Amino acid sequence: MLHTIPNATIKRLALYRRCFIELYDKGIKRVQSGELSQRIGVDSATIRRDFSYLGELGRQGYGYEVRTVLEAFNNLLKTEETQHAVIIGIGNLGRALLNYFSSDKFNDLIFKTPVDLIAAFDIKESLVGQQIGNLEVHHLSGLKAYIEKHQITYVILTVPPAAAQKVANSLEGLGIKGILNLSSTVINVAEDIRVHEVDLNMELETLFFYVLQKEQGKK
Amino acid sequence: MLHTIPNATIKRLALYRRCFIELYDKGIKRVQSGELSQRIGVDSATIRRDFSYLGELGRQGYGYEVRTVLEAFNNLLKTEETQHAVIIGIGNLGRALLNYFSSDKFNDLIFKTPVDLIAAFDIKESLVGQQIGNLEVHHLSGLKAYIEKHQITYVILTVPPAAAQKVANSLEGLGIKGILNLSSTVINVAEDIRVHEVDLNMELETLFFYVLQKEQGKK
Repeated sequence: MLHTIPNATIKRLALYRRCFIELYDKGIKRVQSGELSQRIGVDSATIRRDFSYLGELGRQGYGYEVRTVLEAFNNLLKTEETQHAVIIGIGNLGRALLNYFSSDKFNDLIFKTPVDLIAAFDIKESLVGQQIGNLEVHHLSGLKAYIEKHQITYVILTVPPAAAQKVANSLEGLGIKGILNLSSTVINVAEDIRVHEVDLNMELETLFFYVLQKEQGKK
Repeated sequence: MLHTIPNATIKRLALYRRCFIELYDKGIKRVQSGELSQRIGVDSATIRRDFSYLGELGRQGYGYEVRTVLEAFNNLLKTEETQHAVIIGIGNLGRALLNYFSSDKFNDLIFKTPVDLIAAFDIKESLVGQQIGNLEVHHLSGLKAYIEKHQITYVILTVPPAAAQKVANSLEGLGIKGILNLSSTVINVAEDIRVHEVDLNMELETLFFYVLQKEQGKK
């Protein structure tokens, strides 16, 4: 079903899901697209169009039932078995992610993510064998064998920029489907691997451009 | 000029700028929209339309002069003086960001970002007075006075989710223009502050949705 949905909508699905999880958490049972719009900064018409791709989830004037929408998301996510991921590179950012993804909230079914982080890798001998969050750090030299044994399909890449492309190359041909690239540099990999990149400096700059746009609009 | 540019284009400006910085770094002088498209995964037509908003930067069949495009970006960024930012919350993620933004490359004029991180804040007494990256950690109790004295206009928020809204409230009415929210929860602030949110779990889920879309398209 997702392949009929435009990329721009796909990009917003996780945001919608998180917003509905927060509403559910607050005990809110129903929400109008106008309220959603205020919460997440996406205009109502876009929200209604996006939701129309997900099925008959809302009624005009009534809004969206929070539980129904969350169930629709869960169905979407359940079409696949849980995917296994590893994180490569245990600097401060890697550590932050390990602690974050080890948090209890990800055990809750409603919050459950479709990707489960199960191990960490680094080249630093002093880190190997340590537990961070609730995951063990392995040496990078064992990566290929680990990926094959545990059917790893996702990788979170938090290595330094200079190491990123080399590590990315070593991931080809092993059945990896997606890389979340946080290494602050562009990587090129075979087409069967989808790369999704997050660069925090770029995010700061994007914020700056939005502020500039707003200020110039006022003049 | 930015206020006449669509939001979708604004969102891609930082990506374009980084790509051109990388090309410049590699000594590449000229690039076609087709090559750009391959590098950043945005289709050529969109790239050409986006660039048309930035002025007469390319010629059909000739492509874009790397230096000219970078200068156009610098002019865009120079319309404002350097803005000062602080980071609030020095956990692993805060530390990663402090080290990252302290890196030498940000001293290079070409790479120079319009937002300059100048101090860090936390509530943990043991951190106060420490240097992380090349910035000093201050106690959160001194935040308001610091913002006013140093004309801080941007905040990077890396506090735990439970503290985020309270800290965000304390930022209102102090001249803050933008918050980069990395606290994994939605915050609500007065309309004069632009919030740009990055949630790494959401980014992982977005990657998952893209992979799912691709797989379903093949069936």
